[in-house]
Amino acid sequence: MSESLLSSRNLAFELYEVLDAEALTQRERFAEHSRETFDAAIDTARSIAENLFAPHNRKNDEHEPEYVDGAAVLIPEVKPAVDAFLEAGFLNATREFDAGGMQLPNLLSQACFAHFQSANAATTSYPFLTMGAANLIEAFGSEEHKQRFLQPMIEGRFFGTMALTEPHAGSSLSDIRTRAEPAGDGTYRLKGNKIFISGGDHPLSENIVHMVLAKLPDAPPGVKGISLFIVPKFLVGDDGSLGQRNDVVLAGLFHKMGWRGTTSTALNFGDNGECVGYLVGKPHAGLSYMFQMMNEARIGVGMGAVMLGYAGYLYSLDYARQRPQGRQPDGKDPSSPQVAIVEHADVRRMLLTQKAYVEGAFDLGLYAARLFDDTQTLATEDERRIALELLDLLTPIVKSWPSEFCLKANELAIQILGGHGYTRDYPVEQYYRDNRLNPIHEGTHGIQSLDLLGRKVSMNGGAALKQLVKLIQGTCQQAGEYESLNALRQPLEQLLARLSSVTLALLGDLMSGKVNQALANSALYLKVFGHMVIGWRWLEQAIKAEQGLAAGNPADADFYKGKLQAARYFLTWEVPSCHHDLAILEARDDTCLGMQDAWF
Amino acid sequence: MSESLLSSRNLAFELYEVLDAEALTQRERFAEHSRETFDAAIDTARSIAENLFAPHNRKNDEHEPEYVDGAAVLIPEVKPAVDAFLEAGFLNATREFDAGGMQLPNLLSQACFAHFQSANAATTSYPFLTMGAANLIEAFGSEEHKQRFLQPMIEGRFFGTMALTEPHAGSSLSDIRTRAEPAGDGTYRLKGNKIFISGGDHPLSENIVHMVLAKLPDAPPGVKGISLFIVPKFLVGDDGSLGQRNDVVLAGLFHKMGWRGTTSTALNFGDNGECVGYLVGKPHAGLSYMFQMMNEARIGVGMGAVMLGYAGYLYSLDYARQRPQGRQPDGKDPSSPQVAIVEHADVRRMLLTQKAYVEGAFDLGLYAARLFDDTQTLATEDERRIALELLDLLTPIVKSWPSEFCLKANELAIQILGGHGYTRDYPVEQYYRDNRLNPIHEGTHGIQSLDLLGRKVSMNGGAALKQLVKLIQGTCQQAGEYESLNALRQPLEQLLARLSSVTLALLGDLMSGKVNQALANSALYLKVFGHMVIGWRWLEQAIKAEQGLAAGNPADADFYKGKLQAARYFLTWEVPSCHHDLAILEARDDTCLGMQDAWF
Repeated sequence: MSESLLSSRNLAFELYEVLDAEALTQRERFAEHSRETFDAAIDTARSIAENLFAPHNRKNDEHEPEYVDGAAVLIPEVKPAVDAFLEAGFLNATREFDAGGMQLPNLLSQACFAHFQSANAATTSYPFLTMGAANLIEAFGSEEHKQRFLQPMIEGRFFGTMALTEPHAGSSLSDIRTRAEPAGDGTYRLKGNKIFISGGDHPLSENIVHMVLAKLPDAPPGVKGISLFIVPKFLVGDDGSLGQRNDVVLAGLFHKMGWRGTTSTALNFGDNGECVGYLVGKPHAGLSYMFQMMNEARIGVGMGAVMLGYAGYLYSLDYARQRPQGRQPDGKDPSSPQVAIVEHADVRRMLLTQKAYVEGAFDLGLYAARLFDDTQTLATEDERRIALELLDLLTPIVKSWPSEFCLKANELAIQILGGHGYTRDYPVEQYYRDNRLNPIHEGTHGIQSLDLLGRKVSMNGGAALKQLVKLIQGTCQQAGEYESLNALRQPLEQLLARLSSVTLALLGDLMSGKVNQALANSALYLKVFGHMVIGWRWLEQAIKAEQGLAAGNPADADFYKGKLQAARYFLTWEVPSCHHDLAILEARDDTCLGMQDAWF
Repeated sequence: MSESLLSSRNLAFELYEVLDAEALTQRERFAEHSRETFDAAIDTARSIAENLFAPHNRKNDEHEPEYVDGAAVLIPEVKPAVDAFLEAGFLNATREFDAGGMQLPNLLSQACFAHFQSANAATTSYPFLTMGAANLIEAFGSEEHKQRFLQPMIEGRFFGTMALTEPHAGSSLSDIRTRAEPAGDGTYRLKGNKIFISGGDHPLSENIVHMVLAKLPDAPPGVKGISLFIVPKFLVGDDGSLGQRNDVVLAGLFHKMGWRGTTSTALNFGDNGECVGYLVGKPHAGLSYMFQMMNEARIGVGMGAVMLGYAGYLYSLDYARQRPQGRQPDGKDPSSPQVAIVEHADVRRMLLTQKAYVEGAFDLGLYAARLFDDTQTLATEDERRIALELLDLLTPIVKSWPSEFCLKANELAIQILGGHGYTRDYPVEQYYRDNRLNPIHEGTHGIQSLDLLGRKVSMNGGAALKQLVKLIQGTCQQAGEYESLNALRQPLEQLLARLSSVTLALLGDLMSGKVNQALANSALYLKVFGHMVIGWRWLEQAIKAEQGLAAGNPADADFYKGKLQAARYFLTWEVPSCHHDLAILEARDDTCLGMQDAWF
């Protein structure tokens, strides 16, 4: 097996042919970087992922964390892997040199992270959660918070979590009940229960910093009454020394279908009334802070889904090339040798579908990461705002599309391996189980669809949507210069035109108060929008493939032809399938909305 | 929770309103039966399934069979459950009274079995495998075989297996290597290795009778050189007494993603050259015998997939009714109480989709069982032949459609439960894992698609297909009598017309030798054909619902309205989605066929 985590040829194609990573080095922030430093970071990531993350992926699954004496115990392989990740500097990959970081573009950090996500989703979660919590404190915490909590996180001594969900209010954050009372000394005392807190306990770090959503006594009802608190597992003295255990208790562990290596915890805050918390930023502004970090978190989930899909694709491809079985339909002579199953048309279909899903979503994830860099490093505020709007619009797709379609890729990988794929002797069934989490956490599929149609497409007068339409039209126009791409361009143009008019109609309904009706079929809207975006990214890839074929060396021809065939698959097999969904949306079909509880 | 295995109202609808089970009692074979005896059998099945099968379904999963001293050890709850199944007579539900059976129609036995399949797929496998093996011996074995092996199976003392698959030849049976040498005394000595043999070892019965495919020394190559043998775990004396262990060794157990309670074994036959086997029927005719039992086996797999889907649907429906969370899009006042999630349009979509998939496939499975009865009990040979042809045609759909779409239903059930659905504290994740086996075993999805397009639609000059078309047209015509069903009838008629012409075109290609091209996209053909069949079954259900609404008591109105809404969902949301697949088939699209190994 040549490469098991991702295709480095494809990664290079994305970075240097599609997304022009080298252009980033002309921006001041990345001026000390070059293709060489980028590639060095990627090599380091691949090496650590292959040598320390991948080898215990199955063991993580077979020996999930155990609850022993009030603490979560992990298998011993996790810590050395995470330590190597920290020592190589990946926790601070994008942080400035001065702050101990590598000052890499987000595009490059995502490219590095992809290797870990492919190798071992569960172990990767611990540093990822820490990055998310650290970023929150960096963006909204006080200087004291940064000194006391952020700095040890940057140093890898403290890890972090996000503590949002409560037992009675999963997606409905406005209904959380955790309370925070002022203690009179500037700190707060929290009381409440949280569930599904990933990384809520483990022995990987000196301390764990929980970022907790809770309500102050004077909180207005709903989401505008939610505040954000830092709640450490161990109290931290003014000199940074670790004090006594805070009143945070590990109430239990959840046992999941997959992603088993990551502790999923129930945490009780303040059972004894002594849970110390620190308010981050202003009162009642907690959810808005969370939302400002949401793009990063959701891109992370999306890329996680992509990489599980990618790992399954590569494994099943390798298997299909090695495994002889049966003969072609027109060559049934039983005395002829069996052919490798990659020769069967239906196996090719399953491989090509996986390739189209995985590499399409991989491109989109990296495109979003590149856009994230734009939001921070484009020259003018106006340009940065425009980039952010586009990123805001695309985020529900970046999160949800891979969660759905790269899971489907994992299903196909199992099918290619047949009975073997269904056994735990092969890795593909674990990828499938691990990936099933992604449509649920960090905003379910349904939440993403409401976010897209109910908020994102109309924000700022539809500015981001207009910008996206312009970008897609530009790609279509460019594709028109290639005779070979006409048949691929047309389905995308047709979808774009029809989706644009459906969008206008639905927004009209929303504005005229028919809210429930307009949002009733938002799941279909999300699917079609996602297919349009992935179709666009495939057309971009196809253009670059044509350019590569024209300019490249003959050794690369197969690679580019594969890109063109996958683009053809996605744009002619998948994209046109959306017209039926659009017809349902156009008709304001109320089949689901009109279904009554009593009729089930 | 009212009912967890299946809706008994829906079962009664199927049996007595849609499929007219009572009419069967007018046939001689079933003359001693009545609706009362049918319902009594169903009540017994439900009671045993609820009380003895369902309670250890999770434990089966958590404590999979262990390999101890060369044998498979199961949890203790399996045997009492299986024993109750045997004692109630279900193993011989369809066998004649004289042979110790209940002489039930196949339709009724499937209706009974459905409860066990829903309650505990793994434990149910043991008696099911035994029924399959017993039926083979009954149909093709000698009198001596019946005396020595079948009779103890009927009595529940011996269990059975089907031993087909070998390590190097999964779906490609023509390549099996297991050999059988005549021993000179009328018996044979077998040598070879088999894998994925379900129920290949267990402590549930005195003996296990393996039905083994192997090749005789003079076998012609390929599938026409395969013979069928009885190979018992313990030799059986002329007086029926158990003798010494035969030379069959449990080489190991497979550890699966789901369906864990059923031992999946690797068996070595004849490691010591002393594996005694008995030839069933004629030499080299083994595969044709197997294929004659295939309809039953594949209907069984299909119904198994349905019932896992059904169990998940009912669980997620109950959860959605109990679980308050969030508010309607147009009612965001956070001080208002949360609504049950069944009130959310997208949750209704996920429930309605499950209902449409599960109840559509349930109807088809029972329809096929009814057809099976017709193949045995219609008055004339001609009528029986016609029924058998139709059943042959429908079998790939009965097997594959639920395997794909009821698995999808399980995916939706998890989504409705959100984070909880992903934990092993709730049953839906197990249903999803269990159901993932069904597209693989008993002929993969790809095999089913080749069987349908490459064999079934053209057999006997397309007689069965013509008959199916006539039946569908008849249903459409009848639906035309109901104003309300016009909008449901039309999509089905359109699909039927277009699929018919695509079929003719593809058969033309096959006949003109373009075999690989014609079969390249058989997976799409299978999907479209399946949707047409399920759409037809939903239109049938809709007609019966209209009749029920007109004639029924008001208490039933909700039930019938639910049927009409699910029919509307399937016929207007799902059926028209097939036109894009048909366009690909019409174009003889070669995107997948033309993909090259080197391009991946």
